[in-house]
Amino acid sequence: MTEKLELLEEHRSFDGVQRKYRHYSTVLGCDMTFSLFLPNKEKFEAPPLVWWLSGLTCTDDNFTHKAGAQKKAAELGLALLMPDTSPRGDDVADDADWDLGQGAGFYLNATQEPWARNFRMYDYIVTELTGIVREAFGLTGAESIMGHSMGGHGALVIGLRNPGRFRSISAFAPIVNPMEVPWGIKAFSAYLGENQENWAESDASKLLAKHDGKQVPILIDQGTDDGFYDGQLQPEKLAEIADEKGYPLTLRMQNGFDHSYYFIASFIDEHLEFHQKHL
Amino acid sequence: MTEKLELLEEHRSFDGVQRKYRHYSTVLGCDMTFSLFLPNKEKFEAPPLVWWLSGLTCTDDNFTHKAGAQKKAAELGLALLMPDTSPRGDDVADDADWDLGQGAGFYLNATQEPWARNFRMYDYIVTELTGIVREAFGLTGAESIMGHSMGGHGALVIGLRNPGRFRSISAFAPIVNPMEVPWGIKAFSAYLGENQENWAESDASKLLAKHDGKQVPILIDQGTDDGFYDGQLQPEKLAEIADEKGYPLTLRMQNGFDHSYYFIASFIDEHLEFHQKHL
Repeated sequence: MTEKLELLEEHRSFDGVQRKYRHYSTVLGCDMTFSLFLPNKEKFEAPPLVWWLSGLTCTDDNFTHKAGAQKKAAELGLALLMPDTSPRGDDVADDADWDLGQGAGFYLNATQEPWARNFRMYDYIVTELTGIVREAFGLTGAESIMGHSMGGHGALVIGLRNPGRFRSISAFAPIVNPMEVPWGIKAFSAYLGENQENWAESDASKLLAKHDGKQVPILIDQGTDDGFYDGQLQPEKLAEIADEKGYPLTLRMQNGFDHSYYFIASFIDEHLEFHQKHL
Repeated sequence: MTEKLELLEEHRSFDGVQRKYRHYSTVLGCDMTFSLFLPNKEKFEAPPLVWWLSGLTCTDDNFTHKAGAQKKAAELGLALLMPDTSPRGDDVADDADWDLGQGAGFYLNATQEPWARNFRMYDYIVTELTGIVREAFGLTGAESIMGHSMGGHGALVIGLRNPGRFRSISAFAPIVNPMEVPWGIKAFSAYLGENQENWAESDASKLLAKHDGKQVPILIDQGTDDGFYDGQLQPEKLAEIADEKGYPLTLRMQNGFDHSYYFIASFIDEHLEFHQKHL
């Protein structure tokens, strides 16, 4: 078990540095990795922080390797933090399917066994990893949050539940109403139990419907050729709730794009510029 | 065996399309994959073609996933072609090490067994794959070539041996004098035999030293923190030969960069702009 941060990789990237770390998470009870991009420290002494939450099956590597976000982040002076998507390891519960268990933490705190012991990704992100990056890297300034698919769900839920903390929220092809779609129903049943009253605080549509605090702007991009669009995502449902409430949410349908990182790479610069405006 | 092109993946990427194909190569005697980015066909009817040759251990995926080249290629209207780095399959000879055999074709035609039967990457690139992309995609216009490490060696050798065909050559951290460094000596001994007279036509430094035809401009970027710089690369050797001959070669030492795709991503836009000027 590694109690301190262990630097696994360090690469110069554009005008900044891309790193990967391992540490022992006391919240999750296992070793975790995360990746961090820092802009040029001489130009940007106290960079704002943008969180990226990845989707099902991903680790902290997918966005880091494939999104091409470092160029714009280096230019705008943004730090980027990429956590893993679940607790990991031989001692951590898992499932034979890719949409539950390791790689599928859904950014919530599980209450049901065998998951409750390790699957506490909400607390890991909002509390433990936050403390680590504030302490170790001085990232104590403004923050925004974004994500993809399951990570879009995570960004919306964490952002809406912490509106005093995150200045803006964005998502690519997010699961906006997990309580009503197969991925969410399977995961919430396992992690949170069958009582659906306990699901609502992990559902962005439910959270937005009852939201009455600070209105943090939301940007969502959705590809029209995304194979999960109809059955799992349907971001219009969240846009309709926002519209009824006069909440500042922009949903952009992107013609011909799918669910892949090619879609994310095509629009990540615009998401970073969106966050930069609010940071 | 697939005698025709089989489309394995297709993704909208920026204003263009990123595809991956499989086909049976008669030159190599095995199935091969390649990746192809095409810019918006309505804006760019006959795009110039830039080849990318990858380094040791890579497939056609590494550059496609990690270099972030599609944005600039879409903007400039360039097609990008990413071949694999060697013949592949259970029936193809291999070596226990990663610097020989599958994933390490060195873009030459092997003359020694067990390699000679399949390892004919020079002919595959220059003749067979060229014919396929001209026929299937109408990519019959101007061409340039670039690559990384072993693929930088390939781009320099293929570009210098075909100066009437490629308008410009660029490389990231290329092996410029394989006859004199461990990677090249090991590969050339195995693929071409011990008689070093047969090595020179696969060595960029030897080719440039005797070059007296059309002078195709060359751009090379080399990271100063590249762990292979001293022992395997030393691009100054090629720059010195160019300098003596008055050959148009620009070598840029890039401070703090290593051998990874973070280095490539940081400068790929400038390489594409360099090629665009000559295409």
